[in-house]
Amino acid sequence: MATQTYNPVQDRGVSWRDYLPFLDWLVNYKREHLSGDVIAGVIVAVMLVPQGMAYALLAGLPPQVGLYASILPLIIYGLLGTSRTLAVGPVAVVSLLVASGIGALNPATTEEYIALALTLALMVGIIQVAMGFLRVGFLVNFLSHPVLSGFTSGAAVMIALSQLKNVFGFDVPRSEQFHALILSTISRIDQTNIAIFAISMASIGVLLYFKFALGKHLKALGVSNVVALTLTKIGPLLIVVGGVLIVSVFGLHQSADVAIVGAVPGGLPPLTIPLFDVATWQALLPIALTISIVSYMESISVGKALAAKRRQKIDANQELIALGAANFGATFTGGYPVTGGFSRSMVNFTAGANTGLASLITAGLVLLTVLFLTPLFYYLPNAVLAAIVVVAVASLVDVGAFLHAWHYDKSDAISLLVTFLAVIQLGVEVGILVGAAASMGLYLWRTSRPHVAVVGRIGETEEYRNILRHETQTFPNILALRVDESLYFPNAQYLEDVVLGHVADNPQIDHFVLVCSAVNYIDISALEVLRDVHERLRDNDIGFYMAEVKGPVMDRLEAIGFADRMGRQNFFLTTHEACKTLRQLGKAQAF
Amino acid sequence: MATQTYNPVQDRGVSWRDYLPFLDWLVNYKREHLSGDVIAGVIVAVMLVPQGMAYALLAGLPPQVGLYASILPLIIYGLLGTSRTLAVGPVAVVSLLVASGIGALNPATTEEYIALALTLALMVGIIQVAMGFLRVGFLVNFLSHPVLSGFTSGAAVMIALSQLKNVFGFDVPRSEQFHALILSTISRIDQTNIAIFAISMASIGVLLYFKFALGKHLKALGVSNVVALTLTKIGPLLIVVGGVLIVSVFGLHQSADVAIVGAVPGGLPPLTIPLFDVATWQALLPIALTISIVSYMESISVGKALAAKRRQKIDANQELIALGAANFGATFTGGYPVTGGFSRSMVNFTAGANTGLASLITAGLVLLTVLFLTPLFYYLPNAVLAAIVVVAVASLVDVGAFLHAWHYDKSDAISLLVTFLAVIQLGVEVGILVGAAASMGLYLWRTSRPHVAVVGRIGETEEYRNILRHETQTFPNILALRVDESLYFPNAQYLEDVVLGHVADNPQIDHFVLVCSAVNYIDISALEVLRDVHERLRDNDIGFYMAEVKGPVMDRLEAIGFADRMGRQNFFLTTHEACKTLRQLGKAQAF
Repeated sequence: MATQTYNPVQDRGVSWRDYLPFLDWLVNYKREHLSGDVIAGVIVAVMLVPQGMAYALLAGLPPQVGLYASILPLIIYGLLGTSRTLAVGPVAVVSLLVASGIGALNPATTEEYIALALTLALMVGIIQVAMGFLRVGFLVNFLSHPVLSGFTSGAAVMIALSQLKNVFGFDVPRSEQFHALILSTISRIDQTNIAIFAISMASIGVLLYFKFALGKHLKALGVSNVVALTLTKIGPLLIVVGGVLIVSVFGLHQSADVAIVGAVPGGLPPLTIPLFDVATWQALLPIALTISIVSYMESISVGKALAAKRRQKIDANQELIALGAANFGATFTGGYPVTGGFSRSMVNFTAGANTGLASLITAGLVLLTVLFLTPLFYYLPNAVLAAIVVVAVASLVDVGAFLHAWHYDKSDAISLLVTFLAVIQLGVEVGILVGAAASMGLYLWRTSRPHVAVVGRIGETEEYRNILRHETQTFPNILALRVDESLYFPNAQYLEDVVLGHVADNPQIDHFVLVCSAVNYIDISALEVLRDVHERLRDNDIGFYMAEVKGPVMDRLEAIGFADRMGRQNFFLTTHEACKTLRQLGKAQAF
Repeated sequence: MATQTYNPVQDRGVSWRDYLPFLDWLVNYKREHLSGDVIAGVIVAVMLVPQGMAYALLAGLPPQVGLYASILPLIIYGLLGTSRTLAVGPVAVVSLLVASGIGALNPATTEEYIALALTLALMVGIIQVAMGFLRVGFLVNFLSHPVLSGFTSGAAVMIALSQLKNVFGFDVPRSEQFHALILSTISRIDQTNIAIFAISMASIGVLLYFKFALGKHLKALGVSNVVALTLTKIGPLLIVVGGVLIVSVFGLHQSADVAIVGAVPGGLPPLTIPLFDVATWQALLPIALTISIVSYMESISVGKALAAKRRQKIDANQELIALGAANFGATFTGGYPVTGGFSRSMVNFTAGANTGLASLITAGLVLLTVLFLTPLFYYLPNAVLAAIVVVAVASLVDVGAFLHAWHYDKSDAISLLVTFLAVIQLGVEVGILVGAAASMGLYLWRTSRPHVAVVGRIGETEEYRNILRHETQTFPNILALRVDESLYFPNAQYLEDVVLGHVADNPQIDHFVLVCSAVNYIDISALEVLRDVHERLRDNDIGFYMAEVKGPVMDRLEAIGFADRMGRQNFFLTTHEACKTLRQLGKAQAF
C-alpha cells in the first residue's frame, strides 16, 4: 500500500496527443452532439458581436479589433483547449488591463495603440505557453479566493467608472483612482448630453429587463428553455439595432452630437505584425505578466467549474498552452489579448455546447459579421456599447463574497477589502500585487501568534486534548502544552515567552512536555529557541520533553544532533506515553 | 488551571519605575560590584577610543565624531538600559549604513555630512523610542536568524572592502556592489602607496597577534586573567601609538604621502542641532528605519545572550527606549547613530561589568581623551584605523553559520545566501529587505506542498501514524490521510489533487478520513476545496470524514455551516474513533 509515493503534481509523462485535445472529440464526433453545439455557437455569437465591440471600446481600441479578436482565437482554443465549453474572446477585466497598460504609455495615434495591443497579445501568448510547457500553472494558487474576489469587484467598479464618459456624453480625464474619476465626473455633470444619457439609460433598462425579468416572463408563458435562453441573450443585439435605427433615422449624431462608432472596416481580419523593439517590450512586461495571470485565473476557474458539472477534466497546463496559442492568433489577425470569460462560457454551457465545435461555429458567425455586416454599425452610438459594458460588469461586484469571508474569518475579509481598495485607488496592476502581499502577510502574521493549549487526558482514552474544551484529567507534576503551529522565526520568540510563562505559572511541575502534533516544521531560528528553553528548564530542575514529533521533523532534529543533545529518552511517540512514563518520575529522576 | 489565559505579550501594566532601570542598581549599589565595573569600564574605554575613531572614518565622518558618540550616549544607556553589560557606542554595521545612506545624498561639505549624521541619529532615536512605547519590538522577529547572519556577513565583507582604499593608499570610487569594488581595486593595484600598505599590514599583523595568539602566550606565562584580558585588548591602542610615532618621527605624511587624521578638535563635545527640513527627513527615512531595526537587533541579541548567562532579564521594549534615548544624546552632542555592539559588550561582560556604572566610567575616560589627548592623534595614519576596522569585521563573516544551516535545512541556508548576495550586490538596505522577503517566501513555498501521510494504527494503541515509518495496522475499506499543514490558498489546490489521487489509487475504499491533527487553520479558499472534495467523493459513493479537528478550526467550520452541511456525524474526535466506527460500516451505510 505504497500510496504515499503518489505525487499528482509530478510529471507523469506527456504524449504529443495531450497537446492536441481536439483529436479526442473530432475523430469520435457523435451526431447527437451537433444540435447542442450549433445552438450554443449561435447564441454565443449573438452575445459576442456587441460585447466584442464594447470591450474593444473599453480597451481604448476601435470596435473592429474586438471582432477580429473573436475569430481566429476561438478557432485555436476550440482545437487546443481541454475545456469543452469555455468561450474565449475579449473580456472586461483584460480589456481594462489593456487600457491601463497601454494608456500609461500615451501612444500618439490609434495605429500605435493597435500595434501595442497586438504586441501585448503576443507577449501574453508567449508567457502563457511558456508557463504551460514549464508546467508552472500552479503558481497562480498563491492568489487566494478573497484576493481574486476583491480584484474582480474592484476591476468591475473601475470598468463601470471608465464608461461614465460614454454614458453621460462628456469627456473625463483618464485616471486609475476611484475618487478622481468620481470627482471629475461630478464636476462635469452639467455638461451632460441629454440625448446620449437618454440612450444610455434606455439601453441599460432594456438590458436589465432581459437579464433579470424576461426569463421569468417567458417561463410563465410556457416558452421552451432553448428559445427562452436565446431570447434573453439577444438584449445587447436588440439595443445595438435600436440604437443604430434611432440615431440614423433622427440624425442624432449631427442634431444632438451623439458619439457614434463611425466607419468600421469590413472584409477579412488583416494580417498584422506586432512591434519587436526592446524598449516597448520592457515597458509592456508588467502589464503582460498581469494579463497572463489574471486571464489564466479567470479562464481556469470558469473552465474547472463547468467541467466539474459534467464530470469532465481540465488539464491546467494544456489550458495555458491553448490560451497562449489563442493569443498568438489574436496577435496576427488584428486582435488584442483574449481569454475564457465567465458569462459567455456559462451561456455556452447552458445552451448545450458539447465540444469545441461550438466555438468554431461562433467564430464562423463573427467572421460573417465582419465580412458583410460592418456597414450597419456606422450609426451605432458609443452609449449603447457603454451600457453593455456597465450591465455586464455590474454583476461582478460581489458584496456577498465579502460578507461571507467576514463571517468566516476576518483575515480573509481583510485580504479581499485590501485588494479591492488597492485596485480602485492604486490601479489594477498594483492592486493585485498589494492584495497578494497582504494575503501572504496576514497568514505569516497569524502564524506569529499561534494558538496554544494545555492538554489533558480524555477519560480513559489515550487522547489528550485542550483542557478548556474537554473534560480531561491532568497530572500535578506534568505540564503538557500543545503549540498549534510550525515553529519558525516569526513565532520562535513568542514560543519561548509562552513556554517560560506557562512554566512560571505552574511552579509545582517537574516535567514539561511540548506536544508537537501540529508542528510541521522547525526552522533553525526556532531550534535555537528550543535549545534555550531546554537549558532554562534544566536550570530550574524541570525536565523538557517532546511528544508526537512528526517523522520529517524528527529526521532533521536527529541530523543536526539536537535529539542526542536533548537525550533520546526525552522524546515520546505519544503524549499518553510521555505522561504514563513521567507520572512516576520525580524531579531527581528527570535527567 | 486556567493557564491558557496567560499571554506574555499582552501588556501587564507598566509603572514609571520600569522606564528608569538605574533606580534598581544605583540605589542598592553594592561595594563588591565596584572593582568589576571599574576594570570593565577601563578596558572598554581602551578599545573604544581607537574603534570610535575608526568607525567614524568608516561612516565617512571625521574621527572626533566617533569619540563624541562615545560619551553622552553611553551615560544615557547606562542609566536607562535594562542590560547590565551592554556596551553602547559606534559599531561597524551601523557605520556602514550611515556611509551608504548619507553617501547616496552626496553632501557637498563635511559640515553638511555631519549635520545629516546628527539628523539620522535623531530620526533613529525617535523611531526606536516610538517602537518601545508602542511595544512593537516583537516585529523584528520577522527577521530570521539566517537572514541576520547573511546580512552581518555581507555587511562585514562590504565594510572590509570599503577600507581597501585606506589599506592600499589609493582612491576607489564609492560603490555598493562587490564586483565593482573588487574590479576598481585590482585595476589600481599599481598605484599602491608602499608606505601606507606597509603600515596597514604591520597593523593587521599586530592586531591578529593580539587577538589570536597573545592570550595563549600570557596564559602560558601564568599571567592573571584580568591582566591578560587587558593586555589582549590594547592591540588597537598600541598600533595607534606606534602609527603616530612612526609617521611623526620619519615625517612619512610628507616624504611618503601617508594619509593622516590631521587636526582633531579638542575640548567638550559641541552642542549640535540637527536639520529640520522635510525633504531631508524624507530622503533619510529608509536608512533611518533600517538603522533603527538593525541596531536594535544587534543590541537585543547581544544583550539577551549576556543576560541569560547571568540569569538576568532584558525588557525588549525598554531596550528600544534606552537605545533611542542614547541616539538623542548622540544627536545633540555632535555624534552619530549608536547601538550596543557585539565585541565591546563581550569584553565588558568578561571583564566583570556588574552595573551600568561600567558604561559611565567608559564615558568618563573617553571624555578625558577628548579633553586632553586629541593633539596626539594628529599624525595618526588612516591606515591604522582601517586595519582596526578590517580586523574587527573579519570575524563577522560566518561561513560556519551557512554550513550549519545547509546541514539542517536547505531553505534556511538559501535565505542566508540570498541575503548575503543581495547585501554585497544590491546594497545593505535593499539586501536586508530582499533577505526578509526571501525567507518568508520560502516558508510560504514550503507550505504550498505539504507532507502527507497515510496513517495506520500502531499495535493495539489508539495512536495512528505514518504507515511508511511505523509498524501499523490498516483497514481495507478505510483510507486515513494526515495532511501536515494548515489548509489555505497556496496548498488548497494541491490538497484536492492529493486527496483525489489517493482515492483514485485505492478504489477498494468506502471511507476517506482526513486527519487534521496538524491543521491549525483552514482558510476560505481551502474551505471551497473541502466542499468540492466532499461532493466528488459522495458522487463516487465514498464517505468523507474529518478527524482530530482542533477546537478553533471547528468553531469556524460550525459558524459558517460547513459542519452541518457535511453532517456532524462525519466529524470524529480521534482517528481511532473514526476507524472503530467506520470499520463496521459498508458503502450503503456511509451516508
